[in-house]
Amino acid sequence: MDLPYHTPLPADRLRACGIPAPWRFGLADRVRFGELDALGHVNHTAYLRWFESFRLPFLKARGVTDYGPNAPRLVLKQVTCTYEVEMGLGLDYVVTGRVSRFRTTSFTMDFAVWLPGKPAKRTAHGGCIVVLLNREGAGRFPIPQIGRAAFLAEDGAEAETP
Amino acid sequence: MDLPYHTPLPADRLRACGIPAPWRFGLADRVRFGELDALGHVNHTAYLRWFESFRLPFLKARGVTDYGPNAPRLVLKQVTCTYEVEMGLGLDYVVTGRVSRFRTTSFTMDFAVWLPGKPAKRTAHGGCIVVLLNREGAGRFPIPQIGRAAFLAEDGAEAETP
Amino acid sequence: MDLPYHTPLPADRLRACGIPAPWRFGLADRVRFGELDALGHVNHTAYLRWFESFRLPFLKARGVTDYGPNAPRLVLKQVTCTYEVEMGLGLDYVVTGRVSRFRTTSFTMDFAVWLPGKPAKRTAHGGCIVVLLNREGAGRFPIPQIGRAAFLAEDGAEAETP
Amino acid sequence: MDLPYHTPLPADRLRACGIPAPWRFGLADRVRFGELDALGHVNHTAYLRWFESFRLPFLKARGVTDYGPNAPRLVLKQVTCTYEVEMGLGLDYVVTGRVSRFRTTSFTMDFAVWLPGKPAKRTAHGGCIVVLLNREGAGRFPIPQIGRAAFLAEDGAEAETP
Repeated sequence: MDLPYHTPLPADRLRACGIPAPWRFGLADRVRFGELDALGHVNHTAYLRWFESFRLPFLKARGVTDYGPNAPRLVLKQVTCTYEVEMGLGLDYVVTGRVSRFRTTSFTMDFAVWLPGKPAKRTAHGGCIVVLLNREGAGRFPIPQIGRAAFLAEDGAEAETP
Repeated sequence: MDLPYHTPLPADRLRACGIPAPWRFGLADRVRFGELDALGHVNHTAYLRWFESFRLPFLKARGVTDYGPNAPRLVLKQVTCTYEVEMGLGLDYVVTGRVSRFRTTSFTMDFAVWLPGKPAKRTAHGGCIVVLLNREGAGRFPIPQIGRAAFLAEDGAEAETP
Repeated sequence: MDLPYHTPLPADRLRACGIPAPWRFGLADRVRFGELDALGHVNHTAYLRWFESFRLPFLKARGVTDYGPNAPRLVLKQVTCTYEVEMGLGLDYVVTGRVSRFRTTSFTMDFAVWLPGKPAKRTAHGGCIVVLLNREGAGRFPIPQIGRAAFLAEDGAEAETP
Repeated sequence: MDLPYHTPLPADRLRACGIPAPWRFGLADRVRFGELDALGHVNHTAYLRWFESFRLPFLKARGVTDYGPNAPRLVLKQVTCTYEVEMGLGLDYVVTGRVSRFRTTSFTMDFAVWLPGKPAKRTAHGGCIVVLLNREGAGRFPIPQIGRAAFLAEDGAEAETP
């Protein structure tokens, strides 16, 4: 694969490997032996690990959190994944993700997994809901303004609260 | 916990530890260190592993598969999980599951995770869609009649095909 | 299996299921689907997870740590495992462990994995070295006296320092 | 990191990022969130997963196996790992490996994990013993001649049998 691994791939790089709009942030990696299950295919939980690994640099890039001592605590409220094509050992894949809508203290992300090509083949897609909590004590934490702006400008997300 | 681990728990045992209808099949286990993530809580993928571990004895008990050489290949098409209460190391929990509806060659399962008590506290719930495929070659595999009957009688499932 | 899972098994229970001296502390569990690898056998890292899960209740029982806020930080310096018999899905197994020798701030543990029987069949054995560190700041933490005494009395360990 | 991930790194690339002789085969990757444990450091089993991931392309490059239908079955008999420096999220690391000695149907590998630098810092080292078995039926499988030659020429391994 001529894509760099573990490196944010912007829209033009994604289009060049056959991944369509609206995806504008991707990360490439390769299937590991330890991600296969006894049937020889990538286990269904591995995709959710990939989405988890995606969220960390993505949310930093969007300005939602710097993962520092004053950062909000990000809690996963829901995950979903739909499996379309079985994947095997050593495949190079790209995970794409975006925020599709957000409220004051929570947001919804969409994900997809792709085998690069002309066009790329989508092997799975999914989503999650993330809630921001205060790090200490009770209560929720509002999405920082810079994050809201990035969700709108970069992801084309829908704001469900003003 | 006075519940046996790794042993199918029928409706009366579930009711006795505070788990309500319609759940009629449960399996108890304990949170392991390796299931925690860097935040010290059970990682979101662990719940999906628990559902996976549940499916194996459950589907055998329902007569869907004996996992033998002539058994259908069971493929996961979709998973979802909603997280309600964070869980920590060493907790005893019960996973309950049931088939909620089925078609000719696929079925939908619901799951929940419980901390036994009076009443039990639900910490997560989820679901999955499973498709039966022919082991060799193409095509789908019909749910065996004994399985359909068990889905109706044991789980109170809705048959979406005659 | 007539052994209780996740429950410390003392010497007489171990002997009753065919596990010989010097083992005096065991924990039973069952192989999960997620512990298999693409070859259909228990992956080699799963055994090390089992040893990890064993250490937590064992070291509490020996009085080495209560895992509380003032407890030492236990750091793994070395692990080893030798694989003797391949293991498959759903097998019931017993992990046994003991401290074989100790110094002022570190100790060596031995482990074995068994399929209960007459006699039990050992499927793997291994070991680890654990170092106790101060939780905050630099420096090592001495094994508490109650832990040293238990290593001698319960495990028949060799004290390499006075 | 200016090193490509998931791409065999030969001796000169390793020397350029501070990794000394005798290492002549390396693979770079990045620590994932899912590899951390509840203490926030890379879990001890993750290193063994890295060695496992290393073995697959390495043994293919050495001509030991093409992982095809007639390939021998490679069975792990022993693993060991010594932990030197704790590792955290997002670190780029290089795994190096080599065959240090071999017999007719088995070989010993050494591994190390490095943080690239001037010089690189070694965070762990380990080893394993691999046995080659016939894929079907009983008996062992001799290391192919091309593999033996590569162990000698590329790894500087010691032949313990003629």
